[in-house]
Amino acid sequence: MKIGFIGLGKMGSFMVERLLNSGHEVVVYNRSTAKTKEIESKGAVATYSIEDLTSKLDKPKVVWLMIPSGKPVEDTIDKLIPLLSKGDIIIDGGNSYYKDTIIRYEKLKNHEIHYLDAGTSGGIWGLKNGYCIMVGGEKRIFIHCEPLFKSLAPENGYKYIGASGSGHYVKMIHNGIEYGMMQAFAEGFELMHKSDYNIDLPGVAELWGKGSVVRSWLLELLANALKQDQNLSGIADYVEDSGEGRWTVLDGIEKSIPLNVITDSLFARFRSRQEESFGAKILAALRNEFGGHSIKHK
Amino acid sequence: MKIGFIGLGKMGSFMVERLLNSGHEVVVYNRSTAKTKEIESKGAVATYSIEDLTSKLDKPKVVWLMIPSGKPVEDTIDKLIPLLSKGDIIIDGGNSYYKDTIIRYEKLKNHEIHYLDAGTSGGIWGLKNGYCIMVGGEKRIFIHCEPLFKSLAPENGYKYIGASGSGHYVKMIHNGIEYGMMQAFAEGFELMHKSDYNIDLPGVAELWGKGSVVRSWLLELLANALKQDQNLSGIADYVEDSGEGRWTVLDGIEKSIPLNVITDSLFARFRSRQEESFGAKILAALRNEFGGHSIKHK
Repeated sequence: MKIGFIGLGKMGSFMVERLLNSGHEVVVYNRSTAKTKEIESKGAVATYSIEDLTSKLDKPKVVWLMIPSGKPVEDTIDKLIPLLSKGDIIIDGGNSYYKDTIIRYEKLKNHEIHYLDAGTSGGIWGLKNGYCIMVGGEKRIFIHCEPLFKSLAPENGYKYIGASGSGHYVKMIHNGIEYGMMQAFAEGFELMHKSDYNIDLPGVAELWGKGSVVRSWLLELLANALKQDQNLSGIADYVEDSGEGRWTVLDGIEKSIPLNVITDSLFARFRSRQEESFGAKILAALRNEFGGHSIKHK
Repeated sequence: MKIGFIGLGKMGSFMVERLLNSGHEVVVYNRSTAKTKEIESKGAVATYSIEDLTSKLDKPKVVWLMIPSGKPVEDTIDKLIPLLSKGDIIIDGGNSYYKDTIIRYEKLKNHEIHYLDAGTSGGIWGLKNGYCIMVGGEKRIFIHCEPLFKSLAPENGYKYIGASGSGHYVKMIHNGIEYGMMQAFAEGFELMHKSDYNIDLPGVAELWGKGSVVRSWLLELLANALKQDQNLSGIADYVEDSGEGRWTVLDGIEKSIPLNVITDSLFARFRSRQEESFGAKILAALRNEFGGHSIKHK
């Protein structure tokens, strides 16, 4: 089918390529034009404004957003509203907070524009392996757009989850779980790295891929990373987060459900980003105050 | 090759079956005779005492132990010592604490008996999929026993890790990571279970298996469990642990390495087994003392 695609970042550009490979007609727009030209050479229709993009689509116009959550999504939807009309469809494939998605769904409904949330997992490997897609919104709109999901996903790799926001909600939980799994690997491999046994870490990561209980795609990626350098010498111990872990923890707080592991894995990332821990300074100061324990001075 | 096998529990009996399928001659012994008869019908040589088992082996005698860690392993080795002689080999395939393994290695060395530790992962699915095996001890003894590991493991699914204890050490870390991964899934699926979206949990577990970042064998097992009953109605919220998680946490304490996620996942199991939390009672009492907050009475 014909589709407009806004956002040609790491995820977006590969997704467009996968759609093109399946024979869809993809009209693209990206803030930076270099990416647009690159994807044009692969068969996409290039446009250089959102007005231009929407003008090149047929009714009902379908526009897929693959842009950072928050203000970029909000602003783009506001730009799209006057350019779209009754029956058109916007799909947010990014990692938006599901509560924002519900608000946007209601807002777009007032303009008779349909809105699907399509949580998308698979990272930069999705071009080859396909993306796992979790879709929320009206079911009949999901069915209308199903050819897109089918092309983007591997076999049985997309699913209608439920009402608006549910696709992003399930994707959020997915990422919360991912944080916990990654942290478990991080802790285990740090122990082995510091072991006197001089353990072949990439070898162990590969070995565990063969029949062990922890075999997983993350472990395969870890084996790849460790094979390049078992000491990860070139990588700083600084870990970003892009929101879904926080929202998962918020969900636990709202529902009064303990999420010790997911919360800890989020907090481990926060700690990794602190140049200096004021908390640790407090602890050192208190130990000195009550016990005369020595302080390590700067 | 010819091998003695002690311990025909869930793991052991399937391992013997896999060895038999590969043409090895397996002399078995188990405390309860019912299991021995069952595995005899599949081609094993049944014995009803450890003396009988060792008498039926050829030099160098190789005895594989697949029994609970701690006293059972210790007692069995003590029984084996007078029945074995110079050059014979004992392999501990169970989840022994690696520090115990090193002590046993030294003790057996005094009797000129070789000792390998073979951490084995794969659970009850190992018969079909093969077991992932991590081996510690002397390399030449590993090489002597390699035909056994080769038959038990899937392709490339066994590895010589290093000196005595290293096989059990790496298996211990494996299980620590497993605790963390399981707890991450546990927390995420509890959130979805309590969500207003009425989420198809087995469907999501299956979906995530197709191209998502969290795809893993544990997720496949989870999909199986949830397909039987998405509410897990028949399962009590009571989780055992068999030691490896504790030892992993001890290792973190010894090395001063923070293991927040693995520790939390172990403590979540402890909490699941408390009929009543005295700690929670303390909290309720304190809230009442300083703030007059009401107490829920028994």
